[in-house]
Amino acid sequence: MTVYHHAVEVHSPLHKPMFHDVTAAAEEAVARSGIRMGTITVYSAHTTCSVIIQEESHDRLYDGTEHLLQDMLDCLEAVVPTCRHEGQYLHPGPLHIRHAEDDLGEKAIWSLNTDAHIRSGLVGRSETIPIIDGHIELGEFGRVYFVDFDGVRARDRTVHFQLLGE
Amino acid sequence: MTVYHHAVEVHSPLHKPMFHDVTAAAEEAVARSGIRMGTITVYSAHTTCSVIIQEESHDRLYDGTEHLLQDMLDCLEAVVPTCRHEGQYLHPGPLHIRHAEDDLGEKAIWSLNTDAHIRSGLVGRSETIPIIDGHIELGEFGRVYFVDFDGVRARDRTVHFQLLGE
Amino acid sequence: MTVYHHAVEVHSPLHKPMFHDVTAAAEEAVARSGIRMGTITVYSAHTTCSVIIQEESHDRLYDGTEHLLQDMLDCLEAVVPTCRHEGQYLHPGPLHIRHAEDDLGEKAIWSLNTDAHIRSGLVGRSETIPIIDGHIELGEFGRVYFVDFDGVRARDRTVHFQLLGE
Repeated sequence: MTVYHHAVEVHSPLHKPMFHDVTAAAEEAVARSGIRMGTITVYSAHTTCSVIIQEESHDRLYDGTEHLLQDMLDCLEAVVPTCRHEGQYLHPGPLHIRHAEDDLGEKAIWSLNTDAHIRSGLVGRSETIPIIDGHIELGEFGRVYFVDFDGVRARDRTVHFQLLGE
Repeated sequence: MTVYHHAVEVHSPLHKPMFHDVTAAAEEAVARSGIRMGTITVYSAHTTCSVIIQEESHDRLYDGTEHLLQDMLDCLEAVVPTCRHEGQYLHPGPLHIRHAEDDLGEKAIWSLNTDAHIRSGLVGRSETIPIIDGHIELGEFGRVYFVDFDGVRARDRTVHFQLLGE
Repeated sequence: MTVYHHAVEVHSPLHKPMFHDVTAAAEEAVARSGIRMGTITVYSAHTTCSVIIQEESHDRLYDGTEHLLQDMLDCLEAVVPTCRHEGQYLHPGPLHIRHAEDDLGEKAIWSLNTDAHIRSGLVGRSETIPIIDGHIELGEFGRVYFVDFDGVRARDRTVHFQLLGE
């Protein structure tokens, strides 16, 4: 049995939710692992990010966002509106802000990412995908996207790949 | 260690989202694999489908849909309305339609499944379930459903089961 | 290869959806298993419960619910309103109630948890998390919560941990 861990960094500069296509990195992890049959878990340890599988939609907005992914954001906007100021949601409360400012040296405004936390919880933190004959089973059109829902500030993010198999 | 892959085909003729109970197929995969302790990942490579676990709700609509599953669809309808014509969502855009028609030989109308793509992304593409003492841990009432959200046309679909354990 | 199963019980007395922080139990399962590299699947076999990863939000409501988790409930309320009486959703229908009363000895009112079933299906039944160097990869702030969406009655619940690795 092989357990293989791989990680890549992505950068989210847009100040809006961003989708990073990590399909090639996932395929590279499978090739490096030597696993022919097993699973790959694509995972975010960041609590404002998610992993989804979606079709590539070809058309893009001026800012580069694929149409289908922007449609997904627009649907989420109706359920979990973008956080624009404190008091819109319960979070962040006073204890959280004191912790962020005093213990972590963060600006209070960076905590106005409540929408990103909730969206990440709803959409889920990972996808587990079969590896069959040395390839990720994504069908004809599937792409793996790491979603950074936090548009408050530019961030560097880590995407984890954990592979099990033989 | 054993890695075991199993797949079954289901057919979605209804022209509305359909739920396929694949619990028996999952149990058969566990029996065939010989795995006593491990996990089974039930997975859709189709980007308009999902896998969920839900209670069997006994009552059904005239078209066969279980009440609880129709309730789930009704809730999703409020967030991700059924796509009825182009321009309702950004997707499908002109590049996507050109690709579908010219490269894949598809009808443009088949791409009006934007709702299904978004629902599939929100609900998730798989469930990973513990195998304990040779049985899937579904509790008293759990059933595994493969959800085909694409009601645009009748489709044949593949459900993947990837098992790891010993 | 090691497969290790662990389970803990939690109690939900609140008559509203409850979030149980099971991070310590998950870490204990990893320590007991001896696994250094692998995955842990945190799973609910209950069809009205989910597993999520979320940041600890420090501030709490009078009833103990963390602010960020209550925000998530408030968002879900708009999509899947709390079930207050029969007829609000299709489920539970007459066949289901007859089964619950006659076969299981349950009160009809206990089946008014349709919202919990749907929320559980949308949010998902499990999270699979990498184990790296003997530790769960949760990042700086991640906590694992078992979510009991069923507020109809006080319940005892089982949380499953299934670990694979070496």
